[in-house]
Amino acid sequence: MGPTLFPQHVIARKRDGHELNRDEVGAFVRGATDGSWADYQLSALLMAIFLRGMTPAETRFLTEAMLHSGIVADLSRIPGPKADKHSTGGVGDKVSLHLAPMVAACGVAVPMISGRGLGHTGGTLDKLESIPGFKVGLSLPEYVALVERIGMALIGQTAELAPADKKLYALRDVTGTVECIPLICASILSKKLASGIDALVLDVKYGRGAFMKDAARARELAVTLTTVAKAMGKPARAILTAMDEPLGTSVGNALEVAESVRFLRGSHAPDLGEVTYALGEQMLLLVGAAPDAAAARAKLAGAIASGAALAKFRELVEAQHGDPAFIDDPARLPQARLVAPLASTQSGFVADVDAMGVALAALHLGAGRVKAENPVDPAVGVDRLVKRGAPIRAGEPLCVVHANSEVAAREAVEILRQAIVIAAAAPAPVKLIGELIG
Amino acid sequence: MGPTLFPQHVIARKRDGHELNRDEVGAFVRGATDGSWADYQLSALLMAIFLRGMTPAETRFLTEAMLHSGIVADLSRIPGPKADKHSTGGVGDKVSLHLAPMVAACGVAVPMISGRGLGHTGGTLDKLESIPGFKVGLSLPEYVALVERIGMALIGQTAELAPADKKLYALRDVTGTVECIPLICASILSKKLASGIDALVLDVKYGRGAFMKDAARARELAVTLTTVAKAMGKPARAILTAMDEPLGTSVGNALEVAESVRFLRGSHAPDLGEVTYALGEQMLLLVGAAPDAAAARAKLAGAIASGAALAKFRELVEAQHGDPAFIDDPARLPQARLVAPLASTQSGFVADVDAMGVALAALHLGAGRVKAENPVDPAVGVDRLVKRGAPIRAGEPLCVVHANSEVAAREAVEILRQAIVIAAAAPAPVKLIGELIG
Repeated sequence: MGPTLFPQHVIARKRDGHELNRDEVGAFVRGATDGSWADYQLSALLMAIFLRGMTPAETRFLTEAMLHSGIVADLSRIPGPKADKHSTGGVGDKVSLHLAPMVAACGVAVPMISGRGLGHTGGTLDKLESIPGFKVGLSLPEYVALVERIGMALIGQTAELAPADKKLYALRDVTGTVECIPLICASILSKKLASGIDALVLDVKYGRGAFMKDAARARELAVTLTTVAKAMGKPARAILTAMDEPLGTSVGNALEVAESVRFLRGSHAPDLGEVTYALGEQMLLLVGAAPDAAAARAKLAGAIASGAALAKFRELVEAQHGDPAFIDDPARLPQARLVAPLASTQSGFVADVDAMGVALAALHLGAGRVKAENPVDPAVGVDRLVKRGAPIRAGEPLCVVHANSEVAAREAVEILRQAIVIAAAAPAPVKLIGELIG
Repeated sequence: MGPTLFPQHVIARKRDGHELNRDEVGAFVRGATDGSWADYQLSALLMAIFLRGMTPAETRFLTEAMLHSGIVADLSRIPGPKADKHSTGGVGDKVSLHLAPMVAACGVAVPMISGRGLGHTGGTLDKLESIPGFKVGLSLPEYVALVERIGMALIGQTAELAPADKKLYALRDVTGTVECIPLICASILSKKLASGIDALVLDVKYGRGAFMKDAARARELAVTLTTVAKAMGKPARAILTAMDEPLGTSVGNALEVAESVRFLRGSHAPDLGEVTYALGEQMLLLVGAAPDAAAARAKLAGAIASGAALAKFRELVEAQHGDPAFIDDPARLPQARLVAPLASTQSGFVADVDAMGVALAALHLGAGRVKAENPVDPAVGVDRLVKRGAPIRAGEPLCVVHANSEVAAREAVEILRQAIVIAAAAPAPVKLIGELIG
């Protein structure tokens, strides 16, 4: 190690606006992984990266070093294409739950490694854990065996996968260095590519319910993600999608699982269908499993119509030690003690459903986390949400609140009354699916 | 504590370029002092401050909070003015050793709290510790009693004084956040004002042997230091001085003590005299102990001529447990095993003596520290250095190397041959004393 690779020299180079080379970025990531850099040195460099930015080359070096800070799962013995999708996160985004079995039912393996919710609502793992018995903590060999046997797996990040990301993410969370595109890119891709996939579709959301509030920043992230993934030899495509109202009609862990089961049975809210099919099409196209978007969509719709997607989901639940009884009887999912509709006080049209307001209500009910170490309540949330543009009459329900305490229910209702706006005229429609990047 | 005072919120505000208020800066400094902020949060904010800067108001809040993170020595029971001087550090800068007793002999108390060397050569404390028996680690009550009894004290930073600075300085040193004017200002002033002084004179050095390479940056630091000190009710003045060649003729701990004794006996190199008198004049003027610069200089020169300054130095050495025998017999100071002149190979004029080169030679000999925890060798260094502009004949000594190992001596000689340049013509004179600020 030359003298320029001392932590303070690498930090000073980035601080002064220089482009770090592969060795310097590698020293940083190794330092995060083996503890040879102190936390205060890691965080100083994270802040310097936040304020100075990173070139595409630096971002690729960072992503590669983080990916190789642990084991990269080897799925090469499994024949056929393997694709995954990642969402930057939105309110009511349960797409992975039903899209993964849909794609797997079309013959494309979906080896999916997901995270917990760090925003206002639960993440994919939290949702899966509301299924009685479901185990997300499989070992890496169990995960590989499962992908081989049933063509899919839905697990959490294990200690062997991208350990540098685990370390750096925890630091970023408490040092004001989360909202930084190169760091976000390296975090997402190092985790996702460690799963051993061939191709990745990204749902990059923007709007008040998304991590990126602004479409231009979301676009920048999408370009960075797809460029870096491709430079690393992994086909990748991103779709920009609006996240201003919740996706679908439920927000809450078990409630969203139930909504995904309804999707697999052929029934879904229009916005949830649009996003699900747009992403699914790209997954099939990216690995050559369909000649064009229309063919891909027909294949996915066929997997729903034939029951193959639902069967694949049942297979997954059983393979990951869950009790599949809830698939036929949603009442077998965790149930909240208090279930009460919230009635509209006015007649007109639903002019707005503020995703952040609904998320905040769900957080008050216990469906999300204030701190990373908090548990989530699987049963609570907001269900049967009206959708923007729908006509409504006074007295009709705006949503149904599922709560485990009167106080939480009252707080949630107060927030939801602000979040759902009724107007005399129907609002202009908004565009949900935006640009395709990469 | 409001929610905006969580570490990550304060960090994010500075990261985004906002001006921190007194409470936010206070939370940071309290967090550094009581450990309620993690080191990685402190270093993230230090980097954000480095890259975003601080307004004069923020810098004052920071300095005040750091000053009051510990005890401020109360010298109010001691009658008469108390002044101190601080140098931003240069090669061969032993001014404090003789200037403090000169000023004290003029009736102005000099309660001086100094640091160890963190650059290439030893600091004032290291130099004092080369005096057999000399104790720099006095307690705060001992320090106050000494200032009261003999009008001066020369001690190290105690644990009670500006503990936030101690914490933050150690972090800055390993996170690439040292060279930042607001942080330097708060570090210097919090320590210096904690000593209980009425007024402060600052020697802000620039040039290749100084911390600030560039005069404009040094001027910015000088303006910041004097402005903040005055805003805190302490008269302060700064002198910009050039630091391209070593100050005086010796670099090394005991060697510099001996040079200061020679100064107190009335003999000194011209450059050392210029800087010493310029600073001493301002110390007397700032507390009203002389009507003008000429009168101040006459007073200081009188203290040398009368022997009062040397007597004050002897008094100090005895009071701080040192053996004063070295004052009359320099051979009682630590002696190096090998003492060898370095002869010039050419005749002509000394065109350049590169301060950094000489410092590096002294460092190789063991006079400075590579790491903060390293000890220094009191005996070694470079003595009887020729001064820029002096005529020289081949065979005459350029300097005398004091070493404790043959290898180190050889390395030092090699470096010194590069650092000392002989030319046919005399170089143009340079301006040593620059602008007076504040």
